[in-house]
Amino acid sequence: MQVEGKAYRSIWLAADGIGVEIIDQTLLPFRFEVVRLETAEQAMKAISRMQVRGAPLIGATAAYGICLGLRRGTSTAALEAIAADLIACRPTAINLRWAVERMLDLLVPLPEAKRLAAAYSEAGRICEEDVATNEAIGRYGADLIARLHADNGNRAVNVLTHCNAGWLATVDWGTALAPIFKAVEQGIPVHVWVDETRPRNQGASLTAWELVAAGIPHHLIVDNAGGHLMQHGRVDLCIVGTDRTTASGDVCNKIGTYLKALAAADNNIPFYVALPGSTVDWSVHDGVAEIPIEERGQEEVLQIMGCDDQGRVSRVAIAPAATTAINPAFDVTPARLVTGLITERGICPASREGLLGLYPERRP
Amino acid sequence: MQVEGKAYRSIWLAADGIGVEIIDQTLLPFRFEVVRLETAEQAMKAISRMQVRGAPLIGATAAYGICLGLRRGTSTAALEAIAADLIACRPTAINLRWAVERMLDLLVPLPEAKRLAAAYSEAGRICEEDVATNEAIGRYGADLIARLHADNGNRAVNVLTHCNAGWLATVDWGTALAPIFKAVEQGIPVHVWVDETRPRNQGASLTAWELVAAGIPHHLIVDNAGGHLMQHGRVDLCIVGTDRTTASGDVCNKIGTYLKALAAADNNIPFYVALPGSTVDWSVHDGVAEIPIEERGQEEVLQIMGCDDQGRVSRVAIAPAATTAINPAFDVTPARLVTGLITERGICPASREGLLGLYPERRP
Repeated sequence: MQVEGKAYRSIWLAADGIGVEIIDQTLLPFRFEVVRLETAEQAMKAISRMQVRGAPLIGATAAYGICLGLRRGTSTAALEAIAADLIACRPTAINLRWAVERMLDLLVPLPEAKRLAAAYSEAGRICEEDVATNEAIGRYGADLIARLHADNGNRAVNVLTHCNAGWLATVDWGTALAPIFKAVEQGIPVHVWVDETRPRNQGASLTAWELVAAGIPHHLIVDNAGGHLMQHGRVDLCIVGTDRTTASGDVCNKIGTYLKALAAADNNIPFYVALPGSTVDWSVHDGVAEIPIEERGQEEVLQIMGCDDQGRVSRVAIAPAATTAINPAFDVTPARLVTGLITERGICPASREGLLGLYPERRP
Repeated sequence: MQVEGKAYRSIWLAADGIGVEIIDQTLLPFRFEVVRLETAEQAMKAISRMQVRGAPLIGATAAYGICLGLRRGTSTAALEAIAADLIACRPTAINLRWAVERMLDLLVPLPEAKRLAAAYSEAGRICEEDVATNEAIGRYGADLIARLHADNGNRAVNVLTHCNAGWLATVDWGTALAPIFKAVEQGIPVHVWVDETRPRNQGASLTAWELVAAGIPHHLIVDNAGGHLMQHGRVDLCIVGTDRTTASGDVCNKIGTYLKALAAADNNIPFYVALPGSTVDWSVHDGVAEIPIEERGQEEVLQIMGCDDQGRVSRVAIAPAATTAINPAFDVTPARLVTGLITERGICPASREGLLGLYPERRP
């Protein structure tokens, strides 16, 4: 997408064909800074410190992490060690494991001498496929927005989204935001309610930044406000992303998604989840019981990062020094609360049968 | 309640019997500072700037605001002008109007010369009644906690609360926190999940501060986390306060309360609202349609106040400069999501019949 008139993706191979460049997302929206990764360890740090985040982008970064690791040694043992370390960086998003396993499946059978080149081209392919996948999600989702626009007498469609599932969370286009970008491209007026998404505020810092860059009307709201807006008819549609989707259509996404899905159901507002097929964990059926939820550090809750009046990115404490916090990073929205899944193959009900209809190769 | 070994209320008559002293709640939890009010205008500012907040405390402050106003002139016209200005300070909490109207009903029929003394004693009476009311709420609510404690095999009872309905929100004891204080006094182990309550973070700054001062175990959580905790059996009971309750049991409370009530209902967790009878607006029946919701400034959403690493209370911006926000301060939880109302007269269903059972004098 465009940043001040220049086209960017969220990750790309450097001009030398060796290093990998990313946007340091911990500095947005205050500073736009490109960081070069040269080792697998740097890729791991970028993932665990959340300089890159979003399930698809984590997957792409891990794929390039394998490439960077192979530059130090191409043995199967080295490859498998890096793969295990990469998968351990974050436990919830399934794309991380998916991308690493895809790389291993390709590379392990190859002679060592061919692995490095094959890895770079496979990582590049993962990125290209991600872009094409998300663009397809965008087209299907834009049709949905177009129908709502026609149904509501051609006024602007009010879409609520949680966290950031925009192009910064993927290689390009995004998942939840792709339908919005595509709809706006088609001339459909869209207004976005942006949940700030505590504790890390990725709505305020990343989604709002993407919408500003794209010139799309939006308002920031606190995470508490969405239910009230839905009660008063000010939300036409919710679209969120997902870090892992079960084979039965449960959706694990940023903490707080479940609360918005409950409010949407209570107010008969369509609640859609946008996802690439790679986000489905076909081995998991009961999301609440089975998906491991990452517990992050309590400092993300006790302190808030922002830009002070001197323009410095700094943290302020919001609680008494004696207070401790817990910080689960994701929650699970049961399939019964999800109106539909927007995938690169079309829109389906959030159910086992719905998913198998679009991904028949997964039918046992 | 105790602050570093000394008993405090949230508002009291100064030693000279003229001024009124309050705790500046905008500085908590970082500074404990007492402010003296000498004029009605200062009382109004304290209410609108939220140095005092919480429906019962706003009512008590307004009652003393009338006293301070009468010191400048005791005519009926002056009295009515001050009353109107006080009521206009904040639109949602019903206790503000209730306290001001109670003062007017008493004072207007009196000869001018008797008004000032009568006002001070009535304001004092409003405060004493509030303390007794909240203590009764605490006793009824503690019985509820004691039953849950016995039912769950005598482990600690996990109570989730939203915003601050503690002693700082009332003259003393609090509404939602009174049952917790009373239960702990009786030796029942309670652990509190404290919603931070964006945008103003009264959970993090006030509820956590009260619980630290009282030595009650608690964890701060982001507003997004409660649903996840409920899905995993980590919440036994929700108790919140209310700024206005309809005659049919709908509850208007701090924005985000509705989302927690939805999650409690979805997980079969009891959701109680603690309130003095003065919070019931007997003229209103449909909370979502009829209660005016205060819209506060967008800067509360775009910036977060906290304590920086130099110990200064300061603000950080969290969003791009081009992003705007909206900031509804309250939402309405429909009666169907409320398990019961804890009042000074006992616990009743959140319904017209339930309320009339406890307040039969309101039966038309």
